[in-house]
Amino acid sequence: MTAQRRRPGRRPGAVDTRGEILAAARKVFAEKGFDKATVRGIAREAGVDPALVHHYFDTKEGMFAAAMQLPITPEQVIPLLLEGPREEIGERLVGMLLRVTAEPEMREPMVALLRSAMTNEQAATMFREFILHALLYQVADRLGVPHLRVEAAFAQMFGVIMGRYVLKLEPLASASIEELVELLAPTIQRYFYG
Amino acid sequence: MTAQRRRPGRRPGAVDTRGEILAAARKVFAEKGFDKATVRGIAREAGVDPALVHHYFDTKEGMFAAAMQLPITPEQVIPLLLEGPREEIGERLVGMLLRVTAEPEMREPMVALLRSAMTNEQAATMFREFILHALLYQVADRLGVPHLRVEAAFAQMFGVIMGRYVLKLEPLASASIEELVELLAPTIQRYFYG
Repeated sequence: MTAQRRRPGRRPGAVDTRGEILAAARKVFAEKGFDKATVRGIAREAGVDPALVHHYFDTKEGMFAAAMQLPITPEQVIPLLLEGPREEIGERLVGMLLRVTAEPEMREPMVALLRSAMTNEQAATMFREFILHALLYQVADRLGVPHLRVEAAFAQMFGVIMGRYVLKLEPLASASIEELVELLAPTIQRYFYG
Repeated sequence: MTAQRRRPGRRPGAVDTRGEILAAARKVFAEKGFDKATVRGIAREAGVDPALVHHYFDTKEGMFAAAMQLPITPEQVIPLLLEGPREEIGERLVGMLLRVTAEPEMREPMVALLRSAMTNEQAATMFREFILHALLYQVADRLGVPHLRVEAAFAQMFGVIMGRYVLKLEPLASASIEELVELLAPTIQRYFYG
């Protein structure tokens, strides 16, 4: 579930080009934020041709996800939301987010990113721009839902995931996914199509 | 809106007893967590009689709020929730939380506490125990609402306040309180009495 298009076998003696691109991407995203960073700028920082960056990463979003070690990219999430009946979107979204974040290796990179966003203004800008432009506005615009309503849904699920895994509030932390879907899906459904 | 019962005028030359009790409280809460800390233990740490601690602070919750510089205590919040019609509790709760957190001097101590809870396991335990036992379980038990439902409501409002003031997501960050009450109150109302 990583973001690269293909993972070429590491050639013996070859430099780790993908790793160098990701290191350059982390630096450029941190300095410029998500919006102002460009594939061209990241290629320049890594000292490679932009075509080589495109060889490893389809999109800036995918590169960001790989650089931050995020387990899933918006391009993977959005189609899952869009397929299936519109009246079940709340259920699909809550179920998917709870299943993905149940895995520590999926969840921890996101918590790490949030932790830096809470303590560092540059990281906060980068996180905000990514969340908004690569995720929330995309979902909102493709579904025709006002941005504020998608952000209310994000806030609900963000709070649940924080309460469950970071603050470890009981009984939220040990509730089953099914129980939480039943409780939370109507909220998300109302924000999207209420 | 601070938590002390009375604020005696600082006598010239007198030591800052209240300040010393709060310093001791911060130390004991951090070491023992909220649940295991006692007024007696805090008095011992401060080198004063427990009666003197009670002179400044009615309750352990009030002392915690003062020690962490929280602007409001659960004892102040809970009666506001309980008074007024039950079918307007969502509106009352959302309105109150948004009005309180609109003031930076009210919000910042809470964000600071959360920041430490996210990066330090001891601070996380202290924050969790306070949130649960002094706030969420109290509200749940007095209203007869299951704990999980009160935590879902907490998660919604926690996410909104984080999204609005820490992540600064637009349009959430600049939406009016009225608009947010209209959007969010039905969610909270459903969790409490849905």
